[in-house]
Amino acid sequence: MSTSPFPRNMPDMAHAPLSEFELIARFFADRDRGPGISLGVGDDCTLISPRPGQQLAVSVDTMVCGTHFFPDQPPAAVGHKALAAALSDLAAMGAEPLGALLALTLPQVDEAWLQAFSDGMGALADRLKVPLIGGDTTRGPLAISVTVLGQVPSGSALRRAGAEPNALVVVSGTLGGAFVGLQAEQERREAGGEPPAVDDPLRHRFFRPEPRIALGKALRGRTRTAIDLSDGLLADLGHICAASGCGAILQAEAVPRDPLLADWPPGKALAAALSGGDDYELLFAWPARQRDELRPLAAALQLPLTVIGEFTAGGGVQVLDAAGSPVLPTERGFDHFRVD
Amino acid sequence: MSTSPFPRNMPDMAHAPLSEFELIARFFADRDRGPGISLGVGDDCTLISPRPGQQLAVSVDTMVCGTHFFPDQPPAAVGHKALAAALSDLAAMGAEPLGALLALTLPQVDEAWLQAFSDGMGALADRLKVPLIGGDTTRGPLAISVTVLGQVPSGSALRRAGAEPNALVVVSGTLGGAFVGLQAEQERREAGGEPPAVDDPLRHRFFRPEPRIALGKALRGRTRTAIDLSDGLLADLGHICAASGCGAILQAEAVPRDPLLADWPPGKALAAALSGGDDYELLFAWPARQRDELRPLAAALQLPLTVIGEFTAGGGVQVLDAAGSPVLPTERGFDHFRVD
Repeated sequence: MSTSPFPRNMPDMAHAPLSEFELIARFFADRDRGPGISLGVGDDCTLISPRPGQQLAVSVDTMVCGTHFFPDQPPAAVGHKALAAALSDLAAMGAEPLGALLALTLPQVDEAWLQAFSDGMGALADRLKVPLIGGDTTRGPLAISVTVLGQVPSGSALRRAGAEPNALVVVSGTLGGAFVGLQAEQERREAGGEPPAVDDPLRHRFFRPEPRIALGKALRGRTRTAIDLSDGLLADLGHICAASGCGAILQAEAVPRDPLLADWPPGKALAAALSGGDDYELLFAWPARQRDELRPLAAALQLPLTVIGEFTAGGGVQVLDAAGSPVLPTERGFDHFRVD
Repeated sequence: MSTSPFPRNMPDMAHAPLSEFELIARFFADRDRGPGISLGVGDDCTLISPRPGQQLAVSVDTMVCGTHFFPDQPPAAVGHKALAAALSDLAAMGAEPLGALLALTLPQVDEAWLQAFSDGMGALADRLKVPLIGGDTTRGPLAISVTVLGQVPSGSALRRAGAEPNALVVVSGTLGGAFVGLQAEQERREAGGEPPAVDDPLRHRFFRPEPRIALGKALRGRTRTAIDLSDGLLADLGHICAASGCGAILQAEAVPRDPLLADWPPGKALAAALSGGDDYELLFAWPARQRDELRPLAAALQLPLTVIGEFTAGGGVQVLDAAGSPVLPTERGFDHFRVD
């Protein structure tokens, strides 16, 4: 309700019923303190003091309504996943989170939606001790852009480069579960069903992926090479191979599949595990002679770590079935994926 | 053209005619090197090594099509302003830019638009030596979210807090010019005119604001308190007063007005200078006993620095006319602004 003498045809949240300041204070404040955070929300910038000898790792991840999530997806799941996807990039570098900034674009101020979104993001932030240290609130089509900052001892960050022939290809957790949830959501929407609860078991991996921060930190000094699985196993392994100048051979039977895929036809289940994205597990290189050290590491982290193949001197990414025959004709993964 | 065995109803840029990787390589790569940047574009995170003894300043700023810029605004101007607005927050803290991350959401891949956008952002980045060190490209309604990182010697960042009674209120440059451009754009669009060129003189301040990085750095150690003018002089001065627990009295006649306001009715010109946003000049506190040092500083920076009032022990923000009568009845600025 501006009484300005001139029209302001480009409104932003400052002119909404709940102002930007009120909105931030109500839904996103009081989570901005943590080690290394010298100045939190409320000034022109956040101030961070990394520990001496640390490099800063930074990444940004955007989720757009209609592209990355459905309009009626539970807002708590949207909030969780926006932060989780960004934190997963820190995990992939072996970085310890310092904080996150939230750039939130909203079509209108829907307080119930905001509360649930904030609760979903806040629960993950609290559990992983990630302060929410700043952001921006604007009016427009619903989108969430999360910038994460982390620290890693200088020189010890995990990279996409550095994988060497004969090193093992190892993946954490199980794969394909997020794709099960995505497909369930697509089928529900085609059938016109009611939105599911945030804790719907079939959508657990799709709604609430877990960034593997502890694993990333544990891998420092033990390997140089890791990536998080957002595009899908084959695509992301392809990124590692391209950056490392090597290839890889995978054993299809070894790829750990999400229990939700148990009833799927084998070919579709394999496709979901190899090419379904959004699982946010870590894929990493591991020295073959230290294979025995994987089991105690998995036990300590309470997270399966599965050897699914090995890196090769060249030849792109190949997937072999139990008989040793190639399952995939090309190295390009998703685009050219075929199941017999 | 996916040949995936299952539909992927949530496409992202990886499935566009020009892939996300190609898009970044073509329009945004090769600008990711600079002092302190250990690892640029192409991995899961960027790695930054701030100099010892520095704090890191971080801020994010989002511009949404239809909210912050018009759909037919020259893309070079959009690119410039998205980066400039974010860098202005570093200037307001006295921070030296280390780099920027670009989260770009595009409805489609329009190569001509992208090239001009990239040129506009890149020209400013090159001139101010700001590496473009990462980002994210997604499909959705046009929006740009820029995260900037800077460094500032520990303890010397400029804050909104810290202004003391009797300190001078000083502003850089001239004010109201961005509002002239906004109004020109609104009138053009109502009249159905052709889009202007990026270098249209009437829209210079609106299209291409200049982040006052050099001024911010020069203010370190000389004052504790500064803010950049994005919401408008009265609103942003209000932020300083609120954070500092003080008030301010401004002399209306002293407020430096953009030359483009010369022909405007006096009341409207004052309103534009006091409440028009988007000028991105700096407003700062300055010790009254060092008033004489402003002139040489302005000369060194080749930037006007104008004393427009002083901070007070209380009473909010007041604006006085030449006769000493209050021009504004309340402290709330924009919302309650009236011109006789």
